[in-house]
Parts: sequence; C-alpha cells; structure tokens
Amino acid sequence: MKQLQVDLGHRSYPIFIGRDLLGHAEYLAPYIQSKQVMVVSNTTVAPLYLEKTLAGLQGFETSSVILPDGESYKNLHVLNQIFDELLSQRFDRRATLLALGGGVVGDMTGFAAACYQRGVSFIQIPTTLLAQVDSSVGGKTGVNHPLGKNMIGAFHQPQCVLCDTDTLNTLEERQLSAGLAEVVKYGLLGDADFIGWLENNADQLLARDPDALAYAIERSCQDKADIVAKDELEAGVRALLNLGHTFGHAIETGMGYGVCLHGEAVGMGMYLAAELSQRQGWISRSDVERTDQLLQAMNIPRRIPQDISVEQMLELMKVDKKVRDGQVRLVLLKTLGEAFLTSDYSADLMRDVLSNSYA
Amino acid sequence: MKQLQVDLGHRSYPIFIGRDLLGHAEYLAPYIQSKQVMVVSNTTVAPLYLEKTLAGLQGFETSSVILPDGESYKNLHVLNQIFDELLSQRFDRRATLLALGGGVVGDMTGFAAACYQRGVSFIQIPTTLLAQVDSSVGGKTGVNHPLGKNMIGAFHQPQCVLCDTDTLNTLEERQLSAGLAEVVKYGLLGDADFIGWLENNADQLLARDPDALAYAIERSCQDKADIVAKDELEAGVRALLNLGHTFGHAIETGMGYGVCLHGEAVGMGMYLAAELSQRQGWISRSDVERTDQLLQAMNIPRRIPQDISVEQMLELMKVDKKVRDGQVRLVLLKTLGEAFLTSDYSADLMRDVLSNSYA
Repeated sequence: MKQLQVDLGHRSYPIFIGRDLLGHAEYLAPYIQSKQVMVVSNTTVAPLYLEKTLAGLQGFETSSVILPDGESYKNLHVLNQIFDELLSQRFDRRATLLALGGGVVGDMTGFAAACYQRGVSFIQIPTTLLAQVDSSVGGKTGVNHPLGKNMIGAFHQPQCVLCDTDTLNTLEERQLSAGLAEVVKYGLLGDADFIGWLENNADQLLARDPDALAYAIERSCQDKADIVAKDELEAGVRALLNLGHTFGHAIETGMGYGVCLHGEAVGMGMYLAAELSQRQGWISRSDVERTDQLLQAMNIPRRIPQDISVEQMLELMKVDKKVRDGQVRLVLLKTLGEAFLTSDYSADLMRDVLSNSYA
Repeated sequence: MKQLQVDLGHRSYPIFIGRDLLGHAEYLAPYIQSKQVMVVSNTTVAPLYLEKTLAGLQGFETSSVILPDGESYKNLHVLNQIFDELLSQRFDRRATLLALGGGVVGDMTGFAAACYQRGVSFIQIPTTLLAQVDSSVGGKTGVNHPLGKNMIGAFHQPQCVLCDTDTLNTLEERQLSAGLAEVVKYGLLGDADFIGWLENNADQLLARDPDALAYAIERSCQDKADIVAKDELEAGVRALLNLGHTFGHAIETGMGYGVCLHGEAVGMGMYLAAELSQRQGWISRSDVERTDQLLQAMNIPRRIPQDISVEQMLELMKVDKKVRDGQVRLVLLKTLGEAFLTSDYSADLMRDVLSNSYA
C-alpha cells in the first residue's frame, strides 16, 4: 500500500493506493468525526462494492443513497436526493459523507458535503481510474447545468481518499481507457519523463497489471497534488490541469451529457490542443503524432464526433470557467511535457484545426 | 453615513449605513472586480429600487433576475433561475452578483455566488431591517429544504454591504417589527445596555426615525460582527446568535415557509427561551416579563400559533444545525444580556413551557 499526502495546510489529507483496501476499517475510521456515515453510490457500483464498504464501517451508524449512474444525472435535481436522505435520517453537522463510485458520484457527494448544513466532512473511495487520478485530488466538487459543465460547485477537500486498484477489475474497457486519458494528461502538461513511461507501459495498463496501475495512479496524483498545493483555488498554475478540457467540455455539452465519457472528450481535447499548438509553431509535427499515437495506444478516441459542428464547438467553448472578459483562454503546449495558459492564439488556426479534426 | 468594518482577515468588508446611499456608484464601484454585474431582486423590491440601483452602476455590464417574493421560494429550484441567467448571459468567474432585497434574496444570491463557477464575488444591498441587521453580517448563505430551514448553504462573505435606511420607508409594519425582533436579540444575547436603549426608543423605531434606525442597525451589526470575527465558521460562540432560532425554525417549518415571518418566529423563540431559562432558575420572572414587554412594544408576536402541536414542535426542533449526537442544544439566557449554548435543560420543563405558551 502506498500513501501520498496532499499538502494543503490544515486541509491536508492522505491518499491510500493499493490492492484490497476496501472493507478495512483502519484506513477510514481515523478520518470519521462522529458515528454518522452516509455512503453515496450509484446503481452500477453499489451492487459490486457497497456491501464490502459497509462491512468496513461496523460500529458506525451507516445509511446509503444510491443515485442513478451517469453524467446526465449530475444535476441539482439528483443532488437533492442526497439532502433528502441526510435530512430524513437526521444527519447532523458532524456527519461524514462517503463517495463510493466514479467522478460523478465523487463530485456530487463532495458538493453535497460542501453545502449540507454549510459544510460537513467527506471521504472519497473512487472506483474508476478516472476518478482515482483526477477527482480524488484537488477538492473540486459540483454539478452540471444544461448550459455548461461543472458550472455549479464548490472547493471542498476530503478527509482522506482510498484508491483500491482491485475495483478497476470490474471497470469496462472504455472506462479504463477514459481514465488513461487523464493519466496521459499529467505527462503532457508537466511531466515529460512520464510520457516515456506511459509509452513503454501502455500494454500493461490496458491489461490491468496492478503494479502498473498503482504506479500510474500514484504518479498522477502526485503530479496533480504538486500543482494543487501551489494553487488550491485555481488563481494561476492550477488552470494547466485543464489541458484538453475547454475543447472536451464543449464536446461533452454538445453531445449531451453522458454520450461521450469525460476522459474520451478530454482525449479529443488534448489532441486538438496539440494540433493547435503545432500550428502556432510551439510543438513539432512529430510531437503531435507522438501524442496521437500514445492516445491511440490507450484506445482513446481523438477526433471530434460528426454530430457537433465547428460553429457549435466555438460557441460552446465560450462557456468555460477560464473565460475572461469574453476571451476564451486555452491550455496549450509549449513543448511536449510543458503546458501554459494563453489567449494568444489565432482564431483562424483554431477554426482550421477544428475543421480538420473530425472522426 | 456611518461605516463599519467586519473584521475577517483577507475576507474583511465594510458595511455602509445611512440615508440616500442607493444609486451612488462611489460606494459600490471599488468593490466590483470586472464589468459584469448581475442584480438579483424580487417582485416586490425590484419595482421600488431596481431602477435606482442600476442608475448607480453606469459603465458596468448589468443584467438582472427577478425572483418571486417570499420564504416559500427560497429553494434549489428557484436558485437555479439565477444560474440560468448567469449562464445565458455568459457571466464569467470574475462577475459580481448584487443582492437587492430582504433576507431571502440575500441568502439566495450569496449562495448562488458561492456556487457559481465554484465562487464569484457578491455585494449586498439589504432593503429590510431584518436583512440589514442580520444577513448583512456573517456570510451565511443558503436555501431551505422541505425538511429543514437553511439546511443547504455555504459560508461566503460579501465584498461590501450597503444599508440605505430610506429603503425602510416602504417596508410593511409587520416586516419592520420582524426586523426589530432580531435587533432585540442582540441586546438579550450579549448587550444588556442595548436592552435599555431599545426600551427607551421603541416608539422612535416604530415611527421609522432615521437616526434611531441607523443607530439600531449600526449597533446590531457591530454586535454581530464582534461575534462573527471571533468564530467565522460557527464552531463556538457564534452559535449564540441563534438565540430563539431553534424554536423559531421549528415554528417556521411547521407553519410552512412564509406563513410566519422569520423575525416573528424568532420573537416567539426568544420568549420561549426566556421562559425555559426562568424555569431552569437562571433568570427571574421579572426578566421574562421585561423580555415579553420589550417584544410587545415592538409589535412582535410572542406566542406559538395554535396550528402547531407540542409534539410537532419537539419533533421539528430535532432538525437543527446545533444538534449533536441526537441531542438538541439550545441557546438560553444565563442573565438578561448573556446567552449560552447548552444541552443541560429538563425535557419536562421544555414540554411545560411549550404547552403554556400558545397564542
């Protein structure tokens, strides 16, 4: 078992990574304040892991709420189901919420914890690779709005995170690859050595080799934790974690939430960011190809679905939290392994990249 | 014009109190970060003061959203109207929300600001006495849930608060008295001298004498600011501001949101707290009578409506943010002018007080 610390002053917390962690009380109990624990999961994950999770919470007053599965349910209306349960069970301000599931469950549970009685504790047990390498670090929580992804939310840090790699064995292949897209992201945006490791270990990762997975999760979380520690509230450098996300969110919103997986959309977005960075003269054609091949090796789609027009993409990209005074700022690549935030790119080249990047 | 500082480190902010402040850009402009300002108001206040408010925001890109008026609309569903407007107008992360209205508008606008893109700035222009002396200090924001008042929310401090006493001239008498209930609260919980001042000035306050009102607002805000500065997130002493509120919230929830005004319910709650404190032997019978008479002098109702049973009261009081391990903790009176938080009271005396305090 590996342990990694996210360093945020009095909001610091540990991430435990390894096999067979679920159901062992010793990891969670020290981080639970009172007896009340509400487990939030979804209809896919609960049948697989809820019982084991509850078995690790003996001696606590547990309750659970099972949400419908999918990005299309990540909204204020479904969020209210968590509040309904908390209130009808008389959960008080010292209660702990425990998120058991993927990124959607984590984001919604964290946001519910941020808002319930103006803030209660929460713990994350992410069960998808994407959630383990992304939403487990950084405290971003929230829900979608029909007009924009993750537009309603809060920064709220968990008490601890438990990444049990065994839970990845039940993950669909498509979900595994979507998670690997976010892993690749950490290499591209700031960890050039990791790109090489990923190229050499793509097959092991797809074969779910537990050591390879644990290493990829640990390195991704460490890379993200280093950035978040520098900029918890995303005033600066943290925006780099959005590599591929402005394009990706537009694709997700345009397709309707849940059609494209988040990681798939980010994969497309990273390819588009690489293409635009090349046209701007920052990275080489072979860098773009290397990016494309690494994504391909992880079975990640890289081209925009035909269902979205270029005009639609441009319009949807304007709804982004990095927009300032109407200007869409993008995370682009200075080199392969170094991203930067800029609004200094050509609208014509952008249009050209989009037009030539369809599936 | 009086100016008062709420001292919260880098979240400190000023409160401006006086006549004819609305519509003067010099008070607001220094606290607005970018050009985008969304004014949130309601169907009662907007016809009276929206135009004047917008006139004080020339040079900014303003937009407005008008919510239905009343506590019964303080919910997640109506909150979403603010997000709809912000997103359809493409408001970005540096936008400012401006609350123009009473406590409901302030709480909802503040909560929308706390959650929109995980946090944007907001300014409060409270137009009721209750909002000026209560919700303008402390950063509590939120909405109600059918099972409990203010159960969903956030702590989010405004950039500044503007209390224009002229706006109180259009206030219904019942609303004025409800605001005075919260003013009386500051005296009872920690400012014994202020009780005497209020007894001597009840008539001037009800006659809306601007100097008396400005003094009462300033002293109330100062009393509250002193407490909030010691305990921003309500880990301790801040709970004293809840004098009368556990009883009051139960009455509000039991009657259905909007039937009793919040200040009226708090008035009843303070009377009940005084009665229970007397039965416990902490304050004297004449203290209870003095409390009752001061509330009466302000035209504040003090007795529980017949519509709620004792059992209902006891059940509803269990849904309170001060509940710990199932125990209802109450703010009671040690002396007239000194409140304390305790779970050490007799359930029998509580039942007796409730049974004998009906209208």
